[in-house]
Amino acid sequence: MGGDDAPATIVEGARLAAYEFGVPVLLVGDPDRLGDVGDMPILPASEVVEMGADAATSIRRLKDSSIVRGAEAVRDGSASSLLSAGNTGAAMAASLLRIGRIKGVSRPGIAVPMPVLGSTPCTLLDCGANADSQPEWLVQFARMGTAYARHRFDLASPRVGILTIGEEAGKGNTLVKDACQLLEHGDWAEACGATYIGNIEGNDLMSGAADVVICDGFTGNVALKSLEGFHDILQGNVMAALDDPVFDAVRPALDKKVRPIFDTFNSRGTGAAMLLGTRGVTLISHGSSSANTIANAIRTADAIAGERIVDNIRAAVS
Amino acid sequence: MGGDDAPATIVEGARLAAYEFGVPVLLVGDPDRLGDVGDMPILPASEVVEMGADAATSIRRLKDSSIVRGAEAVRDGSASSLLSAGNTGAAMAASLLRIGRIKGVSRPGIAVPMPVLGSTPCTLLDCGANADSQPEWLVQFARMGTAYARHRFDLASPRVGILTIGEEAGKGNTLVKDACQLLEHGDWAEACGATYIGNIEGNDLMSGAADVVICDGFTGNVALKSLEGFHDILQGNVMAALDDPVFDAVRPALDKKVRPIFDTFNSRGTGAAMLLGTRGVTLISHGSSSANTIANAIRTADAIAGERIVDNIRAAVS
Repeated sequence: MGGDDAPATIVEGARLAAYEFGVPVLLVGDPDRLGDVGDMPILPASEVVEMGADAATSIRRLKDSSIVRGAEAVRDGSASSLLSAGNTGAAMAASLLRIGRIKGVSRPGIAVPMPVLGSTPCTLLDCGANADSQPEWLVQFARMGTAYARHRFDLASPRVGILTIGEEAGKGNTLVKDACQLLEHGDWAEACGATYIGNIEGNDLMSGAADVVICDGFTGNVALKSLEGFHDILQGNVMAALDDPVFDAVRPALDKKVRPIFDTFNSRGTGAAMLLGTRGVTLISHGSSSANTIANAIRTADAIAGERIVDNIRAAVS
Repeated sequence: MGGDDAPATIVEGARLAAYEFGVPVLLVGDPDRLGDVGDMPILPASEVVEMGADAATSIRRLKDSSIVRGAEAVRDGSASSLLSAGNTGAAMAASLLRIGRIKGVSRPGIAVPMPVLGSTPCTLLDCGANADSQPEWLVQFARMGTAYARHRFDLASPRVGILTIGEEAGKGNTLVKDACQLLEHGDWAEACGATYIGNIEGNDLMSGAADVVICDGFTGNVALKSLEGFHDILQGNVMAALDDPVFDAVRPALDKKVRPIFDTFNSRGTGAAMLLGTRGVTLISHGSSSANTIANAIRTADAIAGERIVDNIRAAVS
């Protein structure tokens, strides 16, 4: 029921996932509003947490909302993962309150795979679960991000960096400096199988310099949205420039060579961010996701759930 | 003496500025190393603060360094502004210690004009002068940014926003929430002639939604470097894709239409960031600046100095 064109776009994406990719999908929402869903099962939920609504309050009050019922389905084992394109805060709150935190995790973090050309993505976290952070939480993000990157992208010992504003050790704000002390001197990397590589600057988020980059949720969200916005501005301008009759003769070649670049570097194209640190798989898609993006996110949800990622994150933080 | 290819590239940029644009340039550095400088005057300085050196220590010890001598030239009135492509911390420290802070300014901030298509740039500050910030400093950045945007871009009442992670009021980290209280309830906007527009998200930094966006120096630097890195990645990939014989017939049209887009959206292309809050004009260029970029930065330095921007910033914070 969440997303800019919900439920129509979401149902269309679910259809693609179910009938093209063969992923079993459980739809959660108001059966009267979902339209034709083929033979996909529906878990009825009469309420909806709106996009602008306060997350914590809504989850407490709207007990029959689709996001609460979806989280309960994961908790109860009738679904292996939860995907939402609705209110992000509500998806986090429902997961925390209904699915619960992994023991030892102070705060879950949102992990977003940033595209890297010719390589596996660079997992950036936290991308907005916690606006303020503690140094210890950043170390947990490093551990959880390592488990995620290893299992999602098949990396033996993911290279983990911390996002800051200089190459030299000791550069950064107080939070980063304190976290660096913990990261440099602890045995966390050995314990979870990471390779700690220290400082990463903003220009290296998509360069392939790191497999996992940790930061507080405020910084991560600003960086992510800045990059998304810039992607769209550049794509819009380049595509408009190429939309000129002078290029008609080479149109197919342009479409084949230029458009895929913008698709590749669209961090929303992977379909979903994952909330790391709860006892279940919760994926969060953009409200503006297309049916194709939703279908890809469902496929990702299926793959991640199959990898027993929660067990791996639990081991990484313990 | 500062910059990746200094002093050769800097001298070449100075030559362009002096002989093509007619801007009088004073070179500061080691006369034996500057090469042929035509009839541009030289202020001799025997020492250099290296790129990786600790700024505060270097400024105290290297009293005959080019950056210290340059700042003294501004202080003494023998130069109207200072431009450096060297160690940013050293340029800030030299400006603070030799030129001095404007009365009432807690901390200077680095202002970077972010390109906006078909409009005046959006001034982002602080882009890295202070890794940690206080709510009150953000309000001063708003005042100083207003004065800067008005005078540099001829805006009557610049629209000022605060960088955060949500559209609704009250979204952000503790610093932003505290700053928002001050920004919403103070008379600062009236006093300095700003139009306060509240929350701005990362995706609106280059959309034209605001004329000035304020943030702490850590967040601003991460956002700026993330965008610079992404710009180069997309430019590199698009240009490589277009560098194919299939496009040879439309090569001139491609060069004319596509390349300028990446030039327009290169935040380093404006040539210089300005340190706002000292009693002089200090501009900071990228170490990797080309001679053309340096020449443009010198032209900017000349224009800004002529606008008596220091007096205007002083008035905006008083």
